Amino acid sequence: MSDILPRIAITQGDPAGIGPEIIVRAWPTDTFQTSCRPFVIGDPEILRRTASMLDQKMEIVEIDSPEDADLTSRHCIACLPINTDLTSDFEPGRISAACGEAAYQATVDAAKLALEGRIDAMVTAPLHKKALRMAGHDYPGHTELLAELCDVDDFAMMLYLAHDETIRSPAGLAVVHVTLHMAMTEVFEAITKESVLAKAHLADRFMALMKGERPRIGVTALNPHGGESGLFGNEELEIIEPAVRQGCEEGLDLVGPRPSDTLLIDARDGRFDAVVAMYHDQGHIALKLLGMHRAVNITLGLPIVRTSVAHGTAFDRAWKGDANEGSLIEAVRVASVLAGRRAASS
Amino acid sequence: MSDILPRIAITQGDPAGIGPEIIVRAWPTDTFQTSCRPFVIGDPEILRRTASMLDQKMEIVEIDSPEDADLTSRHCIACLPINTDLTSDFEPGRISAACGEAAYQATVDAAKLALEGRIDAMVTAPLHKKALRMAGHDYPGHTELLAELCDVDDFAMMLYLAHDETIRSPAGLAVVHVTLHMAMTEVFEAITKESVLAKAHLADRFMALMKGERPRIGVTALNPHGGESGLFGNEELEIIEPAVRQGCEEGLDLVGPRPSDTLLIDARDGRFDAVVAMYHDQGHIALKLLGMHRAVNITLGLPIVRTSVAHGTAFDRAWKGDANEGSLIEAVRVASVLAGRRAASS
Repeated sequence: MSDILPRIAITQGDPAGIGPEIIVRAWPTDTFQTSCRPFVIGDPEILRRTASMLDQKMEIVEIDSPEDADLTSRHCIACLPINTDLTSDFEPGRISAACGEAAYQATVDAAKLALEGRIDAMVTAPLHKKALRMAGHDYPGHTELLAELCDVDDFAMMLYLAHDETIRSPAGLAVVHVTLHMAMTEVFEAITKESVLAKAHLADRFMALMKGERPRIGVTALNPHGGESGLFGNEELEIIEPAVRQGCEEGLDLVGPRPSDTLLIDARDGRFDAVVAMYHDQGHIALKLLGMHRAVNITLGLPIVRTSVAHGTAFDRAWKGDANEGSLIEAVRVASVLAGRRAASS
Repeated sequence: MSDILPRIAITQGDPAGIGPEIIVRAWPTDTFQTSCRPFVIGDPEILRRTASMLDQKMEIVEIDSPEDADLTSRHCIACLPINTDLTSDFEPGRISAACGEAAYQATVDAAKLALEGRIDAMVTAPLHKKALRMAGHDYPGHTELLAELCDVDDFAMMLYLAHDETIRSPAGLAVVHVTLHMAMTEVFEAITKESVLAKAHLADRFMALMKGERPRIGVTALNPHGGESGLFGNEELEIIEPAVRQGCEEGLDLVGPRPSDTLLIDARDGRFDAVVAMYHDQGHIALKLLGMHRAVNITLGLPIVRTSVAHGTAFDRAWKGDANEGSLIEAVRVASVLAGRRAASS
């Protein structure tokens, strides 16, 4: 990629959710218009209906390849169409196989373009796991689908909040999850010395890029009070502590395991650049409270740059005109930064 | 109790922790001096050393019974001594059997006075479970010890934050935990339809007192994404949902199970007065982020009023003069309110 601004594909996500709306809302912003060259992968007709619902003057131009996307403006969205037909089976706010297929197609197309080096980053609007499944694609989420498309085993989902008056670390705060989309009963088998260590390395690599130096990383305990010296569980003593020790020996700046409730306060207050959390809600409760509408979801470990909104399809509020586009704008901003730094360091 | 202001015993907690310091710091505040008649149960010598460490002019007067406590002032703490000797085995910031015993004694003495009706409420400074255990008292925390002293099976630990610019519900926000001080592997057996329902009733009763009408209560899911219709666990469908249904039939205003990360945002924003959380960190991560220094810990289901600070002994920062007394002040304020409402409704 020789041009100045990174080329970014934004997938439409599940058309029945809030994906199309947040894209149309975010499109005219400076982040979209001046930090990158964006285009949408999705259904042009859905985008037209969305613009009309929002009473927004927006031309939707169909393009044949990413390279044609550069002629867009604040009032003109370039859309690379997916190869699905929604005309017969689309209803706002309803789970359907057709919409699951549309979300799947857009993701696959974007990943392919990224792997071919024809785009610099992909940003995804939310899909719905059940719709995905109805369409015959059985993945717990984007993250796992993309890992498979990129043929990667060692990956992680990270939530990221940029620095502001709440998040004190100048490089922002990243939370990476050791386990993710699984029942809580399955978490224990998946938390191993190796998996904790692998996520710590992924967090270190990402935040080194954002911070420009070695980041300081806090590792949460699994059990309340950090296991209270073994009174409330042994995972801290037997798994997490040895992983932290080995990580430090390997050069990482790790602290932990520490009780999650106090560690996350220290992280907010700037004493850590990143946190390794043991399970989904441990990280998500904190980061959503700290910045629901500006949290970005980033997949670590992929050979491509991929960011995403940190929320779901919100079917209950979809197509009503009151969705919040903040997370998508941040996702595109962070994707632009990452694409730029990757290019600079390669 | 015929007098106007409620009489409140404040236990010193583990003397090697930050308990004595936050008591001495909080003592001169309006909350202590005008909303109640407070006295301390602890070691007078420890309080004297604390006042000296803080360079604070504070007389410590030993009393023989709670009824003698009313002569205190902003510069004079009344202390009902415990029957332990710390002279030979006390070191700031160190876990010891002597300090564990001191914390235990103060708790037992306060509970006894409360059960006898000689005080209107008890407020506890933090103890350390390991010190407690070294002293031969094997309880995971104050909550379980007090439940035993009061001969109660149906109890719960609740965290409470009063209304302010962050917590929108006018009655404040309460989070009650279905499971508490146990390893995460043990949580699954302890979450039953009965236990969820029991905690919902306790939360309802407490917040009805605070709100003056039926509170609206959100019930969290156990699994990520609320179990995603069974894809990530069945506890929502098999246990929590039936409990919520039955609670509604019994007249409670329950909503759930809902994914914890988004439910807690809705709770912060005033759409719920209380939350029933499934395990310790689910509630604690949220409430500590929302108000670390003003969160109050309240034991529900006891025949006495008991509140507590929401933090631990902080041995690493103890006796250094920089502890934050905010949570203790709030704990005393809420205890005063609860004691008053109990008296009014009885």
